[in-house]
Amino acid sequence: MTNEFEVTPYRVSGEIDYDVLIERFGTKRIDEAMLKRLSRYGPLHPMLRRGLVYSQRDLDWLLNEYDKGNKFSLYTGRGPSGPVHLGHLIPWAFSRYLQDTFKVKMWFQLTDDEKFMFYDHLTLDETKKWGYENALDFIALGFDPELTKIFLDTEYIKTMYPLAVRAAKKITFSTIRAVFGFDNSYNIGSIFFTSIQTVPCFLESVEQGKKIPCLIPCGIDQDPHFRITRDIAEGLGYYKPALIHSKLMPSLAGPEKMSTSGNREMAIFTIDDKKTVKRKTSNAFTGGRVSVEEQRKLGGQPEVCSVHAYFNYFFESDDAKIREMYDECRAGKILCGECKERLFEKVWNFLEVHQKKRLEAKKVLDDFFVRD
Amino acid sequence: MTNEFEVTPYRVSGEIDYDVLIERFGTKRIDEAMLKRLSRYGPLHPMLRRGLVYSQRDLDWLLNEYDKGNKFSLYTGRGPSGPVHLGHLIPWAFSRYLQDTFKVKMWFQLTDDEKFMFYDHLTLDETKKWGYENALDFIALGFDPELTKIFLDTEYIKTMYPLAVRAAKKITFSTIRAVFGFDNSYNIGSIFFTSIQTVPCFLESVEQGKKIPCLIPCGIDQDPHFRITRDIAEGLGYYKPALIHSKLMPSLAGPEKMSTSGNREMAIFTIDDKKTVKRKTSNAFTGGRVSVEEQRKLGGQPEVCSVHAYFNYFFESDDAKIREMYDECRAGKILCGECKERLFEKVWNFLEVHQKKRLEAKKVLDDFFVRD
Repeated sequence: MTNEFEVTPYRVSGEIDYDVLIERFGTKRIDEAMLKRLSRYGPLHPMLRRGLVYSQRDLDWLLNEYDKGNKFSLYTGRGPSGPVHLGHLIPWAFSRYLQDTFKVKMWFQLTDDEKFMFYDHLTLDETKKWGYENALDFIALGFDPELTKIFLDTEYIKTMYPLAVRAAKKITFSTIRAVFGFDNSYNIGSIFFTSIQTVPCFLESVEQGKKIPCLIPCGIDQDPHFRITRDIAEGLGYYKPALIHSKLMPSLAGPEKMSTSGNREMAIFTIDDKKTVKRKTSNAFTGGRVSVEEQRKLGGQPEVCSVHAYFNYFFESDDAKIREMYDECRAGKILCGECKERLFEKVWNFLEVHQKKRLEAKKVLDDFFVRD
Repeated sequence: MTNEFEVTPYRVSGEIDYDVLIERFGTKRIDEAMLKRLSRYGPLHPMLRRGLVYSQRDLDWLLNEYDKGNKFSLYTGRGPSGPVHLGHLIPWAFSRYLQDTFKVKMWFQLTDDEKFMFYDHLTLDETKKWGYENALDFIALGFDPELTKIFLDTEYIKTMYPLAVRAAKKITFSTIRAVFGFDNSYNIGSIFFTSIQTVPCFLESVEQGKKIPCLIPCGIDQDPHFRITRDIAEGLGYYKPALIHSKLMPSLAGPEKMSTSGNREMAIFTIDDKKTVKRKTSNAFTGGRVSVEEQRKLGGQPEVCSVHAYFNYFFESDDAKIREMYDECRAGKILCGECKERLFEKVWNFLEVHQKKRLEAKKVLDDFFVRD
């Protein structure tokens, strides 16, 4: 029953089979040839080496353009509905690598309008506030202020709206139903919203007054928005955006997407304190056995372990070390408590620095933000 | 078969029974008591006396508030899809009367976004251009620059969008289907649009930072938008807007709504030259008989005559004179050629002055326009 999962920007459920998803969405796997090609621009990011960034659309074309001297812009974003957790940092950290490697402009969208329209409990003031909070996490990852523009939809709408309206004219409700699974009970703002999400990949073209390619690094759950964008881009006079997709970092509860809308114990937030991180890592779901004896005998199951996933996604950049941890677990040579302790240290070391950078980011917000 | 007509902001067809429409829409007739009440603020406008402005919502409440010292704002608008014709001037001329009588602020919306999204053949640049052209006609009617704000949706969107998004969250596609008759093949911009049309009646409240009543003078075909607005206004923290509805001036082809999207010969545009006005008035549909003899014998039918309608709506403010023209026609004492000639003179006298005022309006555009 591998097909019993669902992935859209608004619903991720079941245990995702990422191979099936490539077929379902019609994307292309990042294969050996592509990895080789990418490695010519600089060292491969661990997430590429490990297949965590694993799927793409038109990446070959984008690199061909780049090789001809046509730089692309990057576009990614965040729905500011609450604090950022480590899973959110995945595509951003990867985006940072892309900016460093290709020296290109990043447009970072904060969809305060979207999160307000999709969540009953949030006001527009709250999503806006979270937008500014979340931007601190983004900036803290080290993006180049000269090459990075951050905007809130409601603050950049005068620039975006004419483009969104041109996009909206080309998208019917039938398409929205088919792509996102919305029915007639959805509010008309949520139905319109994908037009707003379509705009940022054209912003560099608008700014430069000529067609500029765009690459969108994002979680694969966001792909449906950009299938629509790709369908209409050329009709609007722009290139179709290229995409590069990451898998979704599992929650501390096991192999499901992290979600802040679920239990807040199941994710580590960038603003969590040491004690909280300790508690959450200690309570994490692992692939351990019912007893120490059994684990020594049978070995653990790192393939379903959230602690191992955290190392793999973010906290162990050394491939040899990751393999070693995997093998030791399998062989029953290491127990869950040890891994949890090691993860806690890695996470807290990271967060301690990140939290300082977050505070520093407050001083430079205005170097990054664009408003109408 | 009186029910075989349709009136929505996007479709007017059949011969409208305005009495049935009041029941269908659930509005209130402007009765003798209301006319008496209105006459206390100043001389009644001819369109009120003649029942051409004939329906309302919450007008009693609005006047109660006014009497207590709570001024209201006015809101009306225009979908800028082409030149303005005389039928468009009806609610505007009436709005001018309201502004003069009550000394209140007018918010005039130019929905360049709407017309672009609803008309295949128009670009956003074109609807914007028409917006500025149409504003000249509005200003030419003599609105007070101190009390009148004109805006294009795309130019005032930063102010409007947060309000539109709050409105949109409360409106489902089911409602849009029921109210406007849209199906799944409609584009998502057209589905979203009513949120934008909802905003201007709250703008005065936003500007003053407190709840201000709003009165919307409009053709009755626009009522469906504001039924939605009224349903959600209080939930957004504002008063429900009050409405005052005019009938739709018939086209030169007879008792149907003027429409610029139909045959351009069937309406007189404010930018038509003398020769064109002459031709159009000469070719107008009348209630005349097949021969002079028959007309002398049977009398004409002023009740279906577009020439008579033009006098009644706009070009004869003297009620006694209108009655006399009606009776003379009925009695066969006057022939269509005479009426057409008289109408031509009235129309051209008006347009000659209006066209000068239109040109003068160009110099004062910036006194009226607001932009983000």
